Amino acid sequence: MRVALLQTASRPRDVAGNLDRLAEACAGVDADLLVTPEMFLTGYDIGADAVAELAEPADGPSAAAVAEIARSSGTAVLYGHPRRDGTRVSNAVALVGPDGTRLAGYRKTHLFGELDRAGFTASDTPPAVVTWNGWGLGLLICYDVEFPETVRALALAGADAVLVPTANMAAYDHVPEVLVPARARESQVYVAYANWCGSEGSLTYGGLSCVAGPDGAVVRAGRAPELLVAELDRGALAVSRRANPYLADRRPDLYG
Amino acid sequence: MRVALLQTASRPRDVAGNLDRLAEACAGVDADLLVTPEMFLTGYDIGADAVAELAEPADGPSAAAVAEIARSSGTAVLYGHPRRDGTRVSNAVALVGPDGTRLAGYRKTHLFGELDRAGFTASDTPPAVVTWNGWGLGLLICYDVEFPETVRALALAGADAVLVPTANMAAYDHVPEVLVPARARESQVYVAYANWCGSEGSLTYGGLSCVAGPDGAVVRAGRAPELLVAELDRGALAVSRRANPYLADRRPDLYG
Repeated sequence: MRVALLQTASRPRDVAGNLDRLAEACAGVDADLLVTPEMFLTGYDIGADAVAELAEPADGPSAAAVAEIARSSGTAVLYGHPRRDGTRVSNAVALVGPDGTRLAGYRKTHLFGELDRAGFTASDTPPAVVTWNGWGLGLLICYDVEFPETVRALALAGADAVLVPTANMAAYDHVPEVLVPARARESQVYVAYANWCGSEGSLTYGGLSCVAGPDGAVVRAGRAPELLVAELDRGALAVSRRANPYLADRRPDLYG
Repeated sequence: MRVALLQTASRPRDVAGNLDRLAEACAGVDADLLVTPEMFLTGYDIGADAVAELAEPADGPSAAAVAEIARSSGTAVLYGHPRRDGTRVSNAVALVGPDGTRLAGYRKTHLFGELDRAGFTASDTPPAVVTWNGWGLGLLICYDVEFPETVRALALAGADAVLVPTANMAAYDHVPEVLVPARARESQVYVAYANWCGSEGSLTYGGLSCVAGPDGAVVRAGRAPELLVAELDRGALAVSRRANPYLADRRPDLYG
């Protein structure tokens, strides 16, 4: 399976413009699935009022527009957006199949500091595994992946790959450089981490989007905008799991 | 607190010789605590029969000899050895204070492949935190630290530093290079990882012993024998924990 990570800075509060850029990226890419950064549709550091104003239901007009982009390009899309459920606003992602079908949604469970807490309610629903294209896929958002428990739970539930839209600042390069490769190794899954680059509001993002493999192989972007494509290999995953039987060697009797 | 890691190849089945070298290292080192590699007293890849023959009770003659080394040098010692409890033989470590008092023991809970399983019984007792010199210390052995659950549990139980005698082969450099720094970051503790170097039996060890800090700082040895000394800094730990509130931001309601 070929996965593309759209490392970019999206346009603050310009949903139509960001949808245009998503369509452009999907049209030109040779991949089965394209992953955007966190809150790609609206921008991330746009203030709580703008987040609340731009948040849409899971089946809102932007969801319909992304479904059309997926359909017309034949590419599955995982995108970040603010989601509204009644009065609750979540930092969310949605996975859309190449036929435009909504396959899964996830709302961020680990909020990052005041930036997240000002605009979002934390979800109390842990991520689930969805099977698509023969792969067990888990969805996380940014800070979630820094907790080993999240990826571990997804791997134990059958995930082969964990897809992580993020908005990671340059001051936190240890996440793509250390923690993401560790997650892939220790839980024997692929981890695809799609980051912002450039600046937005008061934030400077670090890029370094990557696909980390269970065998230690890492395909990585630099600091600039880039459409990074990586191959996820079922054969390599199986070989690595035999060589690194971490999931089988756990001692759940000792730590649950 | 100054911690010294004795990166070395110990002499197979030569307990007296290894005790001599431990005494020499402790006499010359400017550190509060010295950590040996896994199974330092006897060698590691010496075969199950030799392991069983050389295994001693926790209060056996080698324990008395190490206590005397600690006392005469005024250095605390964490050392690896095969431990006998009745018919059971464990891959064990013991922590001895600078006055010769036994402070804690731990038996490996995650056995690594046939090498461990041929000679040892896995312990069913998870590691506990012992407080010494104002520091909460957790003990693990080699493969244990590759599981994020172990360090997490120790950090939640009050560990400030996790000390890990190991015998890590060169084919597994990802452990000191990726997993150990990740453990320190994600659970906001120091992790001190004391490895073998050189060859023993059929094994080639990778060295790269290290002390990884919660803030990402890593002090690391090369491939050759080395007495690596690192300072563990309470102030830096406190600053890092405020900047990286991983333990507070966990969602135990979602994953226990």
